Amino acid sequence: MKTSEEYKKSLQQMRPNIYKFGELIEDVTTHPATRRTVEGHAQIYEAAQKKEYADILTTTSHLTKKPVVRYLSILQSAEDMIANVRMKRLMFNLTGTCTGGRCAGFNALNAMWAATYDMDNEYGTVYHDRLNRWLRHAQENDIALSGALTDPKGDRTKSPLQQTNPDMSLHIVKTDDEGITVRGAKVMICGVAAANEIFIMPGTSYKEDEKDYAVSFALPRDTKHLTIVETRRPSDTRELEPGFDIPVEHGGITQAYVLFDDVFIPNERVFMCKEYPYAIKAVMNFVAPYRAAIGGCVAGQGDVMIGAAALMARANGLPEKVFKDKFIQMMINNETTFGMGIAASALGKKHPSGVWIPDTLLSNVNKVHVATLPYETKRIAQDIAGGIAETGCLPSCTDLNDARYGKLLKKYLTANCSGETRAKIARLIEWLTIGAGVPGCMHGGGSPDGAKLLINAKSDINQYIELAKRIASIDEEIIVEPKKK
Amino acid sequence: MKTSEEYKKSLQQMRPNIYKFGELIEDVTTHPATRRTVEGHAQIYEAAQKKEYADILTTTSHLTKKPVVRYLSILQSAEDMIANVRMKRLMFNLTGTCTGGRCAGFNALNAMWAATYDMDNEYGTVYHDRLNRWLRHAQENDIALSGALTDPKGDRTKSPLQQTNPDMSLHIVKTDDEGITVRGAKVMICGVAAANEIFIMPGTSYKEDEKDYAVSFALPRDTKHLTIVETRRPSDTRELEPGFDIPVEHGGITQAYVLFDDVFIPNERVFMCKEYPYAIKAVMNFVAPYRAAIGGCVAGQGDVMIGAAALMARANGLPEKVFKDKFIQMMINNETTFGMGIAASALGKKHPSGVWIPDTLLSNVNKVHVATLPYETKRIAQDIAGGIAETGCLPSCTDLNDARYGKLLKKYLTANCSGETRAKIARLIEWLTIGAGVPGCMHGGGSPDGAKLLINAKSDINQYIELAKRIASIDEEIIVEPKKK
Amino acid sequence: MKTSEEYKKSLQQMRPNIYKFGELIEDVTTHPATRRTVEGHAQIYEAAQKKEYADILTTTSHLTKKPVVRYLSILQSAEDMIANVRMKRLMFNLTGTCTGGRCAGFNALNAMWAATYDMDNEYGTVYHDRLNRWLRHAQENDIALSGALTDPKGDRTKSPLQQTNPDMSLHIVKTDDEGITVRGAKVMICGVAAANEIFIMPGTSYKEDEKDYAVSFALPRDTKHLTIVETRRPSDTRELEPGFDIPVEHGGITQAYVLFDDVFIPNERVFMCKEYPYAIKAVMNFVAPYRAAIGGCVAGQGDVMIGAAALMARANGLPEKVFKDKFIQMMINNETTFGMGIAASALGKKHPSGVWIPDTLLSNVNKVHVATLPYETKRIAQDIAGGIAETGCLPSCTDLNDARYGKLLKKYLTANCSGETRAKIARLIEWLTIGAGVPGCMHGGGSPDGAKLLINAKSDINQYIELAKRIASIDEEIIVEPKKK
Amino acid sequence: MKTSEEYKKSLQQMRPNIYKFGELIEDVTTHPATRRTVEGHAQIYEAAQKKEYADILTTTSHLTKKPVVRYLSILQSAEDMIANVRMKRLMFNLTGTCTGGRCAGFNALNAMWAATYDMDNEYGTVYHDRLNRWLRHAQENDIALSGALTDPKGDRTKSPLQQTNPDMSLHIVKTDDEGITVRGAKVMICGVAAANEIFIMPGTSYKEDEKDYAVSFALPRDTKHLTIVETRRPSDTRELEPGFDIPVEHGGITQAYVLFDDVFIPNERVFMCKEYPYAIKAVMNFVAPYRAAIGGCVAGQGDVMIGAAALMARANGLPEKVFKDKFIQMMINNETTFGMGIAASALGKKHPSGVWIPDTLLSNVNKVHVATLPYETKRIAQDIAGGIAETGCLPSCTDLNDARYGKLLKKYLTANCSGETRAKIARLIEWLTIGAGVPGCMHGGGSPDGAKLLINAKSDINQYIELAKRIASIDEEIIVEPKKK
Repeated sequence: MKTSEEYKKSLQQMRPNIYKFGELIEDVTTHPATRRTVEGHAQIYEAAQKKEYADILTTTSHLTKKPVVRYLSILQSAEDMIANVRMKRLMFNLTGTCTGGRCAGFNALNAMWAATYDMDNEYGTVYHDRLNRWLRHAQENDIALSGALTDPKGDRTKSPLQQTNPDMSLHIVKTDDEGITVRGAKVMICGVAAANEIFIMPGTSYKEDEKDYAVSFALPRDTKHLTIVETRRPSDTRELEPGFDIPVEHGGITQAYVLFDDVFIPNERVFMCKEYPYAIKAVMNFVAPYRAAIGGCVAGQGDVMIGAAALMARANGLPEKVFKDKFIQMMINNETTFGMGIAASALGKKHPSGVWIPDTLLSNVNKVHVATLPYETKRIAQDIAGGIAETGCLPSCTDLNDARYGKLLKKYLTANCSGETRAKIARLIEWLTIGAGVPGCMHGGGSPDGAKLLINAKSDINQYIELAKRIASIDEEIIVEPKKK
Repeated sequence: MKTSEEYKKSLQQMRPNIYKFGELIEDVTTHPATRRTVEGHAQIYEAAQKKEYADILTTTSHLTKKPVVRYLSILQSAEDMIANVRMKRLMFNLTGTCTGGRCAGFNALNAMWAATYDMDNEYGTVYHDRLNRWLRHAQENDIALSGALTDPKGDRTKSPLQQTNPDMSLHIVKTDDEGITVRGAKVMICGVAAANEIFIMPGTSYKEDEKDYAVSFALPRDTKHLTIVETRRPSDTRELEPGFDIPVEHGGITQAYVLFDDVFIPNERVFMCKEYPYAIKAVMNFVAPYRAAIGGCVAGQGDVMIGAAALMARANGLPEKVFKDKFIQMMINNETTFGMGIAASALGKKHPSGVWIPDTLLSNVNKVHVATLPYETKRIAQDIAGGIAETGCLPSCTDLNDARYGKLLKKYLTANCSGETRAKIARLIEWLTIGAGVPGCMHGGGSPDGAKLLINAKSDINQYIELAKRIASIDEEIIVEPKKK
Repeated sequence: MKTSEEYKKSLQQMRPNIYKFGELIEDVTTHPATRRTVEGHAQIYEAAQKKEYADILTTTSHLTKKPVVRYLSILQSAEDMIANVRMKRLMFNLTGTCTGGRCAGFNALNAMWAATYDMDNEYGTVYHDRLNRWLRHAQENDIALSGALTDPKGDRTKSPLQQTNPDMSLHIVKTDDEGITVRGAKVMICGVAAANEIFIMPGTSYKEDEKDYAVSFALPRDTKHLTIVETRRPSDTRELEPGFDIPVEHGGITQAYVLFDDVFIPNERVFMCKEYPYAIKAVMNFVAPYRAAIGGCVAGQGDVMIGAAALMARANGLPEKVFKDKFIQMMINNETTFGMGIAASALGKKHPSGVWIPDTLLSNVNKVHVATLPYETKRIAQDIAGGIAETGCLPSCTDLNDARYGKLLKKYLTANCSGETRAKIARLIEWLTIGAGVPGCMHGGGSPDGAKLLINAKSDINQYIELAKRIASIDEEIIVEPKKK
Repeated sequence: MKTSEEYKKSLQQMRPNIYKFGELIEDVTTHPATRRTVEGHAQIYEAAQKKEYADILTTTSHLTKKPVVRYLSILQSAEDMIANVRMKRLMFNLTGTCTGGRCAGFNALNAMWAATYDMDNEYGTVYHDRLNRWLRHAQENDIALSGALTDPKGDRTKSPLQQTNPDMSLHIVKTDDEGITVRGAKVMICGVAAANEIFIMPGTSYKEDEKDYAVSFALPRDTKHLTIVETRRPSDTRELEPGFDIPVEHGGITQAYVLFDDVFIPNERVFMCKEYPYAIKAVMNFVAPYRAAIGGCVAGQGDVMIGAAALMARANGLPEKVFKDKFIQMMINNETTFGMGIAASALGKKHPSGVWIPDTLLSNVNKVHVATLPYETKRIAQDIAGGIAETGCLPSCTDLNDARYGKLLKKYLTANCSGETRAKIARLIEWLTIGAGVPGCMHGGGSPDGAKLLINAKSDINQYIELAKRIASIDEEIIVEPKKK
């Protein structure tokens, strides 16, 4: 397994194809727009080699029987999936935010592990074998693998072919003996700047006439004709400044628009090619573990919010007990999303391919909590921390160091610690609750409304009704006839 | 294992010592104040013999290797504990309410299994062996075992010895070679009317000078000098009436004041006798599984509420889709308490005695949800069902059958089903949300405030602070000095 | 104005036509099923004559310039409407529950005051003059006036004429020179047992072919061919028992099915007769003040819950400060529904007839709070009070006084006050939160879903969109075309 | 009254003394860090001259009987206060955010109007007369007046004199015949960049030995020795960029550290000088109207969020009805804070000086809602809008216009409108929910915890207890004795 230095070197060796603010980023490991996310991902490589975290971050490859980082493993049991939830919590604990260049890739790999197995069974294709070989290569090189599902989609009520432009979802424009050529984009893709490769999957279901959109493959991030534009995030220009107004040096998120301008993918990297019925099946394989594990993510960031808020209280001269009930509520929120992730893991089932798939109902219930509870946790953090942190309402680092008035500012920021430390804590809370550290927990991994539809789909109202009828000894059949129009 | 008929017979053979409304109940299986709870518990015996439920309700005794009902088993793994959570959900699904004459006994047995093991190790006592033998007897006779922890306590800010009367908590008043004599009461005890025996445990911690209060034992429900007074519950006099105003015939709760008027307990049934440091340890052993499993209980009743509300919607002529978001919210509430119970089970640990103890933190987080979410579920059920169900606002069964105007009432109750069926559904919702079927989810198994204290105790705020300091590279030590008075 | 004794006498002089449990109630002032609600309403007569409450409960008739109880007045200003909100809070403070035999009548009177004015203007009818004369009579006799809107309705998705039976909503079956004859029922009608007359109004909109359902009138409660059946409520049979298991002697709710078996109404009492476009207008006139004032109701009961919970805490030996945050949350809930009622009152408008009509938007927002916040208040009351109050889990009054074991029960109930007082407090909390004192705040005055529809109808999403477009300087017109099917 | 052009000219004529990012801002009306807030405040001047808004924004001076902007008027009735609440909602509707350079000044003026009246009565001082004359000057010049209360305070558990440095709260360091000299700072002060003068008030209570801290005065923003440093806000460097990444041109917030380096204030501008008992009284006068009116603020921003979310839904191709329940919930939140502000206004009382003071209890209840409900409204806006808006996850304006790939980005952003418009809408939602447009509703006007303390202080638990005792006929006196230590 790679060291963090080797990891960074591997990134430096890649072709520059990432832009932000109109600038081509020559070296993602040093450019201020991307170096924090690289450092965050580098912490995975570091932690994997530390005794205290090795159990959580590494496992044994079922292919090679050698140790691998979990992010490149196949989840094979409830224990694996529980470790996944813990791993996400740990990484948020260590970086303060999302290391999104790994988890979507990890999930996509597992989702396609099952889907390729099923496709081969049904169609006699060789996708599973290809994926097996690709995975050996990935494990051997200990690559950082990001994943991408979300298409631009265009008008939400229309299918890909009804759009003005057929490119609004990624699709195959050409196939030949060597491979396929794809056009379109994947958008809002986490952590590609920190990744060596990207695992591509469909983002929704497709019908027969849309089969060109049913496509999955893995490609190096610097593949020819692939252009990446990083999106901007709250307060992201601060990342280009010196000082602590971005208070975190070893963690950060990026999300990109990944543009495929007729990109060629060789056959050995293609894992789905027009098998349209399996697009949605692969998505479902992706959704359950993703929505379970994300409970660990928001719990992990919530942990940091508790700490930051408690630190701010102390900086203000206030003991924690003043805010005891609020801290407990934050803990309850954290443990709820974490716990629901654990529960979905524990009640999962093994797919014939060997992949462990968490319980869909509980995963989706968790997605709803993940889209709700962290908002309360952030609100409480701001409540405890005071106005200074709520909207980041304190002078910039530049001003704090101004020769004319910086000294006065620091004087007036002083409380139960130095003014500078208090300012740093305030910036941390701002970063966590309304700044560049806020992950997309509402829509990451799909919307809560989508999750609610799955909750509804997983539950048969008639079974509930039968329980009630039996208990109250009600025999009459009650049917509501559809309204005539 | 007993049939339900044998179970009822075993109850009929006991000495009558239960009172309600000033009346001694001669036969708990037929008296209207107790027969519903007996029927509910009888469903356990029935279901244990049904193929579809056997996996959930029965297991193999680790003592005898024979099949036993889970309620008389020692929980030995995460799987056992998960089955416990499922079992509780199932029994609420089948009875609509609490079969509380089993679960506290089950928990007390397991809690004391670990505590006796530890006491014997520390003090060289023989409690664990006694409990082992008692358990064999219990399993062989397939008894219904209730459990009791809660003492009257008196003034909450005073210890037992500070009370005006030392009997406000159950205590030993005499010991001799044969056994011990106890005085006091256990109050608000579930399901003793449906039980063959009662397992007694301390309800809190005791200091050395209070060691007479550290006592645990099991005794037949009809032991000499033991008097039981059933409490009244919402709408409980309806249970004495004919008709469907209590809409459930095969389920019901009772809660009793159990009065110990110098009751003698022979040594072989005594499992703690003045080992005061183990009182709170036993309580802690009890709390974690109880507060995990109760998530299954409220989910199970919530399932019935979904069904009842959907049935009422249909009865009113409305399709379920009108209330889709509300049903989904009810499902989310149910799956959250269920899931948190599963999570606490999955992350538990094995005690040296062999007992599996769920995670304390997650169990107590669940207790808080259990004290909150079902209230919302009930509110939504009333919301969907309409005014007729909200406060049970429809004429009595007697009036519906009145020769003079009953016909008119039924006419006006008719909607998308007969008036009588609609009235029954309304009564079911009333019973579930504001009637005799409401279990004590707020304070059963201890108060949510107690759970919050445990959540706080389980979490070291300094660890959270260290996470935040590391992430934002803050080195300054910040200490809040205690205020001088 | 009448004394409370004169009021009760007036009730005694009426023809008995009220039934409960199959029994004709000969004297509503003494029969245990109705005497508590009569006593509650009698408190209105008493309070109206007390200096401290006179401002809230009485005003000057704009017809006679003499003092009248507000319940028989026309609301003419924001101040009148604010006094109405306060009056409702006061009456809940004094009785612990709903005195529902007055407010629906009061609202119906005001709603029809405006509607008759408009109808006369449009149709040249004489309803407003009739109502004027009827009101003088009502004020002169200081009658207790209940009101009734809700029809049985049958299948909710069908109109009255689509029902199997045309009687599912109250309708005119005959008109002649002297008056009209009506058939059908009004259901779930509050407080008729305590009323001298009932004011009848339509409950929804009607189309031209349903004009027979557009009918409004006032009639003495004991009118010929009118039969009243009281519904049962949680724990209502306790009202028939001696002792304090129903802890309130001078307050109580009743809700009745009022059956019209071809009842004749003379013309001078008829205020709408087939003018179908005014049915829904009258309903809207009713809804705004009702949904504003109900905020005072639930606040008033919430006040008592705070007191009862604080008293229980003291009885348990605990000072209020232990529960400070919980009490504050209860206060916030109470003041929110009260305040929203005040706001709707303050922003109302004067109808040409002189009636003050509160703001529809704020009234309906309040209806949603009224259907939500009291549930939380009750939950907190149970949280503070402990298991003894949550489900009424303590022995009956009969058992507390049992010669054999009553003394023991009282001993074990003792805490920081006598066992009997503690039991009474527990019963009060049970009565308020899960017993006979719970008013129908979810569906009383219509469902929260109905309120939400009105909120939506009152708000034009395009206006909000224009705000957003202007602020962000967005010019592009964005239209979503309806989906083709 | 001034035109908006005259207003901007008046700002240009002032001495530059505002810094941000180490730069002295020469002209606040054109510098990108301040011009948006100036434009926002200029909209007040514009709207005041528009017919449709004149009633809300202007009134008649009770001093001169001439028209004045409400922000410089004395609130004299419930109607005035209600207009204040409406005015705040309107200004958020027009600017999308806070025009905080006016409301704190307006509140401080009114608070001190009452306090000076009382001080003069008690001490024979001449403050009220001074304030009267100053106000005439302010009205005649139609100045923009900001207000400042918040001191740096240092360690929260220590009083000003216990701090390491006595300057942690603003205090008088010298008095002479001409005036006073003050040192210290006011921090997190809204809108001073858009103000001509600043009204200074104490922020808390002071004891006799702290009387130098009891000081109030008004001073021109460009007074000698006054230095202002603007704080940074989320994404504030975008304000320095071209393009629409800050989507609002005519509105914006600034919050400043205002540093008093021995500033001289002439006597005629001093309204409190060491009358320490009146410090907290003035604060209380300030708090009630501020916490009432802020309900209008957050409602006003909430209105824009509804519009922006609906616009985004349309841009995505989705009709509003898909999100109907969510829009209704947003409306409920908006109307609740607005309504509670109206209610507090309606139930206020007239101070002998003529000032109308809203109800303290309802104002503080509203403060709690204001610190809670907008967070839910923002969450829902993000929920409806999708991932593109949640964390501003779309490329920068610079990138959208990049010659190499900008066209592709716009293509992929296209949905039911152009890509550029869709991007603008997403930026607006980002700005409103997690960007530079977020006002400090949690701690602005004091913390919700402070409000809760006032709610508690305003409510006597014994009165609640008496209600409960009376209703349940409980006579026993129950007292909890304080615990002995």
